[in-house]
Amino acid sequence: MAKKKAAILGSSGMIGQRFAQMLNDHPYFEVVAYCASDRSEGRKISEVWRLHDFEIPRGLENVTIQPTNPASLGKHDVEVVFSGLPSEVAGPIEDECAEHGMAVFSNAASHRMEHDTPILLPEVNPEHLASVVIQKKRRKNGGFIVTNANCSVTGLALGLKPLIDEFGFTEVDVATYQALSGAGYPGVASLDILGNVNPFIKNEEEKMNQEGEEILGEFKNGRFVDSPLNIQASCARVHVRDGHLEAVFIHDKNMPDQKMISRTLSQFKSKPQKLGLPSAPEHPIIVRTEQNRPQPILDVDAGTPDRARGMAVTVGRIRVDKGCLRFYLLSHNTIRGGAGGSVLNAELAFKEGLI
Amino acid sequence: MAKKKAAILGSSGMIGQRFAQMLNDHPYFEVVAYCASDRSEGRKISEVWRLHDFEIPRGLENVTIQPTNPASLGKHDVEVVFSGLPSEVAGPIEDECAEHGMAVFSNAASHRMEHDTPILLPEVNPEHLASVVIQKKRRKNGGFIVTNANCSVTGLALGLKPLIDEFGFTEVDVATYQALSGAGYPGVASLDILGNVNPFIKNEEEKMNQEGEEILGEFKNGRFVDSPLNIQASCARVHVRDGHLEAVFIHDKNMPDQKMISRTLSQFKSKPQKLGLPSAPEHPIIVRTEQNRPQPILDVDAGTPDRARGMAVTVGRIRVDKGCLRFYLLSHNTIRGGAGGSVLNAELAFKEGLI
Amino acid sequence: MAKKKAAILGSSGMIGQRFAQMLNDHPYFEVVAYCASDRSEGRKISEVWRLHDFEIPRGLENVTIQPTNPASLGKHDVEVVFSGLPSEVAGPIEDECAEHGMAVFSNAASHRMEHDTPILLPEVNPEHLASVVIQKKRRKNGGFIVTNANCSVTGLALGLKPLIDEFGFTEVDVATYQALSGAGYPGVASLDILGNVNPFIKNEEEKMNQEGEEILGEFKNGRFVDSPLNIQASCARVHVRDGHLEAVFIHDKNMPDQKMISRTLSQFKSKPQKLGLPSAPEHPIIVRTEQNRPQPILDVDAGTPDRARGMAVTVGRIRVDKGCLRFYLLSHNTIRGGAGGSVLNAELAFKEGLI
Amino acid sequence: MAKKKAAILGSSGMIGQRFAQMLNDHPYFEVVAYCASDRSEGRKISEVWRLHDFEIPRGLENVTIQPTNPASLGKHDVEVVFSGLPSEVAGPIEDECAEHGMAVFSNAASHRMEHDTPILLPEVNPEHLASVVIQKKRRKNGGFIVTNANCSVTGLALGLKPLIDEFGFTEVDVATYQALSGAGYPGVASLDILGNVNPFIKNEEEKMNQEGEEILGEFKNGRFVDSPLNIQASCARVHVRDGHLEAVFIHDKNMPDQKMISRTLSQFKSKPQKLGLPSAPEHPIIVRTEQNRPQPILDVDAGTPDRARGMAVTVGRIRVDKGCLRFYLLSHNTIRGGAGGSVLNAELAFKEGLI
Repeated sequence: MAKKKAAILGSSGMIGQRFAQMLNDHPYFEVVAYCASDRSEGRKISEVWRLHDFEIPRGLENVTIQPTNPASLGKHDVEVVFSGLPSEVAGPIEDECAEHGMAVFSNAASHRMEHDTPILLPEVNPEHLASVVIQKKRRKNGGFIVTNANCSVTGLALGLKPLIDEFGFTEVDVATYQALSGAGYPGVASLDILGNVNPFIKNEEEKMNQEGEEILGEFKNGRFVDSPLNIQASCARVHVRDGHLEAVFIHDKNMPDQKMISRTLSQFKSKPQKLGLPSAPEHPIIVRTEQNRPQPILDVDAGTPDRARGMAVTVGRIRVDKGCLRFYLLSHNTIRGGAGGSVLNAELAFKEGLI
Repeated sequence: MAKKKAAILGSSGMIGQRFAQMLNDHPYFEVVAYCASDRSEGRKISEVWRLHDFEIPRGLENVTIQPTNPASLGKHDVEVVFSGLPSEVAGPIEDECAEHGMAVFSNAASHRMEHDTPILLPEVNPEHLASVVIQKKRRKNGGFIVTNANCSVTGLALGLKPLIDEFGFTEVDVATYQALSGAGYPGVASLDILGNVNPFIKNEEEKMNQEGEEILGEFKNGRFVDSPLNIQASCARVHVRDGHLEAVFIHDKNMPDQKMISRTLSQFKSKPQKLGLPSAPEHPIIVRTEQNRPQPILDVDAGTPDRARGMAVTVGRIRVDKGCLRFYLLSHNTIRGGAGGSVLNAELAFKEGLI
Repeated sequence: MAKKKAAILGSSGMIGQRFAQMLNDHPYFEVVAYCASDRSEGRKISEVWRLHDFEIPRGLENVTIQPTNPASLGKHDVEVVFSGLPSEVAGPIEDECAEHGMAVFSNAASHRMEHDTPILLPEVNPEHLASVVIQKKRRKNGGFIVTNANCSVTGLALGLKPLIDEFGFTEVDVATYQALSGAGYPGVASLDILGNVNPFIKNEEEKMNQEGEEILGEFKNGRFVDSPLNIQASCARVHVRDGHLEAVFIHDKNMPDQKMISRTLSQFKSKPQKLGLPSAPEHPIIVRTEQNRPQPILDVDAGTPDRARGMAVTVGRIRVDKGCLRFYLLSHNTIRGGAGGSVLNAELAFKEGLI
Repeated sequence: MAKKKAAILGSSGMIGQRFAQMLNDHPYFEVVAYCASDRSEGRKISEVWRLHDFEIPRGLENVTIQPTNPASLGKHDVEVVFSGLPSEVAGPIEDECAEHGMAVFSNAASHRMEHDTPILLPEVNPEHLASVVIQKKRRKNGGFIVTNANCSVTGLALGLKPLIDEFGFTEVDVATYQALSGAGYPGVASLDILGNVNPFIKNEEEKMNQEGEEILGEFKNGRFVDSPLNIQASCARVHVRDGHLEAVFIHDKNMPDQKMISRTLSQFKSKPQKLGLPSAPEHPIIVRTEQNRPQPILDVDAGTPDRARGMAVTVGRIRVDKGCLRFYLLSHNTIRGGAGGSVLNAELAFKEGLI
C-alpha cells in the first residue's frame, strides 16, 4: 500500500518537531514537506531542532524548511496536512489547505468551535469524525479539517471518559501543573518561572470547560450536543519541561469505591485499540499504585508500544472520601495533547477511509 | 517593661532560623538560648544559617548553639520556648519544657491533636487559647503548649475564615503547589525535583482536613468542637523555595458574586489587628486584581509593617461560575505557616496575660 | 543642597528597575522622569516591575512611564540621565541627551569604545573620568557620556585591581557562570535553560578582553592606554536569577602565597571609599574563608551600608599551587555590573564637580 | 560463547542503575546478582529505580536486591563484579571480591592510587591494564581490581589525549559545571542548588589533578609514571541533571591553529574502536561547530551506536588566541564518567583475555 503524502505546517515549533518525531517511518504517511513561517524558511531542520529527548531522524538534518504555500502543496500531491501552526495564523492557512482538497489535522484552536469540525480524541469520541462528512460538502475538493483539543483538556477527557460512561459523573474541579513546552518557543521567560509558579494561562480554563463539554458530548443528527459535564479549572504553569499534571476532584452522591474507580480506568480500551492504530497505546490509561506517582519526569513518556510513547495518560493517588474522588493525572502535552493526538486522529480517518 | 526570656529549639533548621529572624529585636521577647540537636551543638549560628533573604542579625553570627536541655533552660529563667523541632522528636521535649513551667509555642505536629492544646491561628480562632487554662491545670508549674497548624492549612484557614463567617461555606477542594522549604533541610533531593512535580507529601492531606476542622471549629464548654468544614486536598511539591500556593475550589448553592467575595476577603481584620500585635499584618488577606497573581517569588513576603513581612496571605484570580468559587491563595510556609505563626501566638498569649 | 534632577531611560527593563531601586531617596539625585520605549509608554511602573527582591518604592507604583524624548527632558531641567537602554538603540539617544547638555551615565555598550568616553569603574580607574573634559569640548552645551563596563568584566576588574597593582599580574583565564538577568527581559527562554547550561553569550568574551584592557589601563596625555592584561574568557549562562560567578585562574612565575593574596584583596579600598560616595561599599572586595563560598543566592547582595547592597564583589576559595592562583568571584550583575555601577559613576562625577 | 556471570554492587544508587542499563543484553556479560546495602536489600529494582531516561529493562522490575556478600557471589560462579559502591565502603568489599578471584571493575576512588591498580580509560591508557598482571600475583585466586577515574577527569583526559599526543601540551586550567547526579542520591539538597551554583565539590579538584597525571602518564617497568601534565581545576555544581560541562584553557608557546585542533580531536580513534568493543563509541570525541554547543540537555547522550550512547565526549567552541586554546567539553558523568567507563574497561579486559 502506498503511503499518503503529508506535509507538516509549523515545522520549526515545539509541536512541529513532535510531528516529525511521530511521523518518522510512519506506516500510513510519508512527510514530503516541512513548512514554516518566513523566519525559519530556508533553514535546515537541524538548525531549529530543540527536542532534547529525540534525535533528529537520520536523513532529516539537512532537509530545508519550505515556505507555507497550500497551493503548492496541492500540486505536489500532498493529501494530508499536520498543522502545528500557532492559533493566531492557523485559521486561514488551514482553510486554504482544506479547500485544496487536503485532510488537515490541526493542533490550533482556530477551527475547534465550528459546527461541523470535530475536536477529535479517538478513544473518547470517534463518532464525532462523522461531522467531517458534512464539512466536506461545504468545502471544495473534498478537503476537511479535524482538530484536536487543547493539551490540558486532552489528558483530562481521556481520564474522565470511562468514569463518565460507567458512573455518570458531571462535577469536576481540576487544578493543573502545566509544562513549559505548552507555551511554545520561546514561550515562558526564564526569569518568570525560575523558582516560581505562574497561576495564569490565557484562555486555558475556558478552553478546558468548553472543549471538554464538546469532546465528551455527542454528535447526533448532524450536530454536536454538549455533555452536561461541568469542568471548573484553575490552570498554572510550573517549572517542568514536558507533561501536564492535573489534580482532579470529582463530586458525586453515589461515589463508587477506590477499587472500582481504579479498575474502570485501567481496563479502559476503545476504538483505536480495537482498530490497532499504529500510535494507539495498548493501555490508554495507566494506573500507578505507588504513593508518589505520576511524576512528570518519570511518567511523561508512558505508552507502549514504542510508537505510542507519550500517548498514554497516567493516573495515580486515587482516593475516595465523603463522596469526593481525587486523583492526579499526567499526560504528555506536546505528544498526546499535541502532535501525537493529531497523528492518531489521522490514523483513524485513514482507517475509516476518509483519506 | 522587661522582655520575657525566650529560647529557640531546633535553631539550626529552616523554622529555627525563621524564629531568629522574627524574634530579632522583638518588643516582648528576648532570645537568650539557641538550642539544637547534638549534630549542631557547639557550632556557631553563622555556620548553620541558610536563609538567603535575611542576613544573620548583627551580633548573632558567633553565638553558639546549645544542647536542648529543658531543665537548664528553666534554671536560666527562660519563660517562653519557640519550638522548630521536627515532629519525630518534639513531643517529649516540649512536654518537659511545659512541665518546667514554660510557655511553649510549637510548630511541630506532636501535640496538635490533644484535647486541651490549641492549634492557634490568632485571626481565626483566638478563643481557642482558653483551652490553655485547662492544660495548665494538668501540668506542673503552670507551663503549657500552644501549637500552630501545618503550613498548608494555615494559609487556607486564614483565607477561608471571613468567607465561612459570612457565607457559611463547607465544601472545599484544594490542590497545593508547595515549596521546598516546607520539607526542612536537607529535605527534598535535587534529583527528585529538578524539572519535576512530586504529587505526594506524607500526611499533608490528612492534616489539612483534620487541623482545618479543628481550627475553624469552636472551643465550647471546655472542648474543641469541629467545624462542619470538608476539606478535600491534593498536595504536591513544586520547584519553589518559599511560599505555598493553593488552588481553592468552593461549592455552594448560594454563591455570592466575585465582588462580594473580594470585598469580604480584603476587608477582613481580626483580633491581632485590633490588639496591635507586633507581628500582625495590617491586612491579613491581600487581594490582588492582576490576572497573574499571586506568584511565589513576587508575593511570598506580603505583609506590612516590616515586622509582619510574610505574615499576610495573598489571594488572586477570584472567579465565580455555576455555584463554584475559585481562587489562588499564597502564604509564606515558614513564616505565616511556621515561625511567624508561633510568634504571633506568643504575642497573643502575652497580651492576654498568659505569659 | 538641591538635588540634581535626573531621568531614567529604559525604565521598564531589568537595569531600569535597578536604577529606580538605587536612586530611591538618593542624596544627590532626584528622579523626575521614568522613560521607556513605545511598548511601555503610558503604563504604570507597577505594571512593568519585575524585581522580586525589592518592592516598588512607595509613591512610585502609579507613576506613568514617559516616552523617551531628550529635548523634552532638557526643557524640564533634567541634568543627569541614567541609561538602561539596550545597546541596539542606546547610541543616538544617549548622544542626543549629551548634546542637550546632560550628563549621561550609561550601561549600554554603544559608546564604550570611543576615544574620549570612559568606561568608568570608580575603585579601579577614577582618573579615566578626566576624559570627560575632552568629550565636553566636542559636544554642545557641556553634556557628556560616561559608560560602565559589561557586567562580567566589572566584577573581574574590581577583583583584579589590587592584585595587579601589587603583583603586576597579566595572564588571566576566566570561566563564567552568568545569571539570567544579564540577558534582560524576556531574555533567555525557559526551555533553553531548565536543567541546562548554555556555553555561549554573544560578544561577551570579546568585551571582557577589550573592556578589561581599557579599564585596567591608563588615561595618559589625553588618551586611553591599554593595560598589558590578557584576559582569556569562556562565558556561559546558568540557571541563576542574579549574580555572575567567575572561576579565575592567574599564572605568574612569582606568585605570592594565599595569605598575601587574601590580605591584598580584603584590605583594598579606593577613591569611592575615601570620598564616602553614598553607593560605595565600605569594603569593595569581601573575602570569604568558608570552603563553599561565594554562592549566588547567599552572596549576591554583599555590601554595606544598605545603600551599597550588591555593590561589593565576593571572593572565595583562594588557592595557590605551582605558580597558579585560583579563586571564585561573584558580583551582582544588574547592581554592581549594571545600574549601581552607573550610579556610583554619577556620584563620583558629582563629587568631582562635573555635574 | 558463554557469557561471563556478573554482579552489580551498589545496585540501588545512580551508578548502579546505570550499570543495569549498560549491561542490559550485553554480549559478554550476564548480570546474575544485583547487590546493595542493608537499606535496599530485599527491595525490588523497580522500587529504587530513578533513571528518568531509561526504563527498567523488561524482566528486571521484580528482581530483588541482594545483600552484598562476596563469598556468596564466588560460590555462584560470578566472575565479574561491577562496583558502584560509595568510596566510604568500597575498599574492603572490593578487595574481598578480588581475593575470591573475581575481576572487579570499580567506580569508587578507594583503590585508584594503589601502585598496581590501574585507573583505566581504554582510549587513553589501555597499556595500563598490564598492571593487573602484577596485582593478580599478590592476590589469591587470580582476582584483580580495575578502577575508572573520577567523572570530571574522565571526560577531560579523553579530550586531552589526542592533543597531548600531537602537541605535547602540559598546562591546563579547567573550570567545571558539574551535574547533580555526580553527587549520588539523595546527594545535593534542592534548597542548596535552586537558582544557585555551589563552587565547591569535596576532593574533586585534587582528584582531577592526581588522577589526570596518572591516566595520561605511562606504565613502564612495572610502575605508573606520572605525566608532566599540570591540571589546575576549579569545580562547581550547577543545576543540571546529567552531564559535566568543562571550560578548558590550555597555554602553549607553540599553539597550533583552531583547524588543526579541531581536526586532531575529531579524527581521534583508539584501541576500543580498533577492537570493536561493544560500548566503544565510533567517534570518542565529537566536535560541534555550532556556536552554542555542547549543552548538557542536548549533547549528554552523544555516542553511536546505541550501546555507546553517553560514551562520547562532545567538544565545542574551540578558540585559539595569543597562545591560549579554549574550548568547552561535555561528558556524561554517570555513563562515560561512571558505569559506562567500567563496562568499557571490562570489555577491554575480556577481549585481552584477562577474564
